[in-house]
Amino acid sequence: MLEEIREQPAALERTLRGQMSAVARLRKALELKRPRFVMLAARGTSDNAAQFGRYLIEITTGIPVALAAPSIYTLYQAKVDFRDTLVVAISQSGESTDINVVLEQARAAGALTIGVTNERNSSMAGLAEHVFHVRAGKEKSVAATKTYTGQLMAFYLIAYALGADIELDELRRVPEWTEAALTLEKDITERADRYRFMEHAVVVGRGLNYANTLEFALKMMETCYVIAERFSSADLLHGPIAMVERSFPVFVFTPSGVTWTGLRELIEKMHGLKADTTIITDKGNRDALALNPRAFVVPVKLKELYTAIPYIVPAQLFAACLATEKGLNPDHPRTLSKVTLTL
Amino acid sequence: MLEEIREQPAALERTLRGQMSAVARLRKALELKRPRFVMLAARGTSDNAAQFGRYLIEITTGIPVALAAPSIYTLYQAKVDFRDTLVVAISQSGESTDINVVLEQARAAGALTIGVTNERNSSMAGLAEHVFHVRAGKEKSVAATKTYTGQLMAFYLIAYALGADIELDELRRVPEWTEAALTLEKDITERADRYRFMEHAVVVGRGLNYANTLEFALKMMETCYVIAERFSSADLLHGPIAMVERSFPVFVFTPSGVTWTGLRELIEKMHGLKADTTIITDKGNRDALALNPRAFVVPVKLKELYTAIPYIVPAQLFAACLATEKGLNPDHPRTLSKVTLTL
Repeated sequence: MLEEIREQPAALERTLRGQMSAVARLRKALELKRPRFVMLAARGTSDNAAQFGRYLIEITTGIPVALAAPSIYTLYQAKVDFRDTLVVAISQSGESTDINVVLEQARAAGALTIGVTNERNSSMAGLAEHVFHVRAGKEKSVAATKTYTGQLMAFYLIAYALGADIELDELRRVPEWTEAALTLEKDITERADRYRFMEHAVVVGRGLNYANTLEFALKMMETCYVIAERFSSADLLHGPIAMVERSFPVFVFTPSGVTWTGLRELIEKMHGLKADTTIITDKGNRDALALNPRAFVVPVKLKELYTAIPYIVPAQLFAACLATEKGLNPDHPRTLSKVTLTL
Repeated sequence: MLEEIREQPAALERTLRGQMSAVARLRKALELKRPRFVMLAARGTSDNAAQFGRYLIEITTGIPVALAAPSIYTLYQAKVDFRDTLVVAISQSGESTDINVVLEQARAAGALTIGVTNERNSSMAGLAEHVFHVRAGKEKSVAATKTYTGQLMAFYLIAYALGADIELDELRRVPEWTEAALTLEKDITERADRYRFMEHAVVVGRGLNYANTLEFALKMMETCYVIAERFSSADLLHGPIAMVERSFPVFVFTPSGVTWTGLRELIEKMHGLKADTTIITDKGNRDALALNPRAFVVPVKLKELYTAIPYIVPAQLFAACLATEKGLNPDHPRTLSKVTLTL
């Protein structure tokens, strides 16, 4: 897992370079037939990446986006109206049976389809009209890391192909910012010891970092067996906050930008409850750093739009280091195998 | 909370009776202008009800459904294309600021709008083109119960108005089935003692009971301070199952019907892990009862389509009784107030 976390800058560069001509083709196809609606279908870590796509595409293109509920197709066998719809299926292996069912049915019903996968020769690559090949290289650890960030990059490029105001020059700097995040490894390795006896936690984030919230919690559940809750800051306040007591571990993704005001209020509320709060931020959020919090600080200044990939890196490092602290093997969590087949 | 749980059969009857003429009007409006896409906007318990609507509407009408991410409108101020879209906003109080922002923007951008609320004179009722008045009666407990089942009933009627194959005669029996579920109160009161020291749990369900999964977990978080995870059975297998160890408390909603095969496999897997599994089912799922499980059994035979309301009742009773067992007041959880305002 640690090795694959470290490979991310190179993998992201490969994804970007390798996909540019496919993205140009996709952009032309989408200009000819702009979708009225987008549906994203995935499971597990890929579904967390889809959450990022959900926010990114709706915010930057104004096209409504839904996350597919695969059972509606696989179990209830509903016939859904897919006219004028773009369906994006995401799977590391390209072999998720249920996701491929959604893809196949949607394409047959007239949807424009994109498959995002790390495996060029997978079933998914054969089923989708357009294939986005993530090129992260073989992922051996059961806990996905480099394929997740590769999938986030895929969504930046899909949003770009849909006409979003995303600068390719900025995207080309993402590998460099990811490299900067990786410099935190030594610090996080040392600090993981403090969390050794942590058995539960809650991760909080908002908007473009809500996906990271889900993904950080999933990494802790998978590799550290920590019972990790995850909420947007607004949803936490609508009920679940009742369970937060003195010393409850709380992790918050805090970029500067439009989500910061609400997140600051939340951090202050957590402080009032004497929760044990750790933030993940970057050098650009001076307001957050001025609170003098317990923090993992990515040592560059980032615009919120480009925080998602660099911000997940300290979370991945933390999960890998904490698993090791707890005497667990993060590459082979109990009960799990790399490819999960569900219907 | 217990009193309001008991009021549900009468409240549901009131909702049904009171709304029939409004539903007929809505059905006519939707026949004239059938939406291409549905978006549901809510927070907290109402958002759990929206999850039910998400499955129900897509399964029974074939119209794609999305759950709104309010921050896209309130913080990112995205201009979303709402043409041909039905937006349903759900709020017990009708005063959720962020949900009302979504409603207002959607209506201004050309969406057909419905507000589902328990308060006839709320801001939401003024903002929406069509108002669905839940008529649950004043809800005093911070933990919502009768407004949740009222909102589920609203979604049955909205799906009906969209042309779904839902029998009004079956809906009219829901209060009676809810009454049957309430007969479990004594049994649950006695059995809650066994769970007194439970500090975490996972709730599992699928499809039309996924909403109940989220709602049961929320009730335990709010009223019992239990750290309650919640997953569809498929999502649990994609990672989080790693945290399930010997004696881990697992609650599973198990109706008969299309979701049962997968749920049975999950229960067997939990048995293999020596987890502490309790199912919520009805007399109609003989297969489930044949496993001789720890169970709360609603003493009637139910079609899966109509399980959502009766099945949440034992879960509500359990949360209320467990809170009392733990010496907590389920009506006034710490840190929470009845109306939560977020942006």
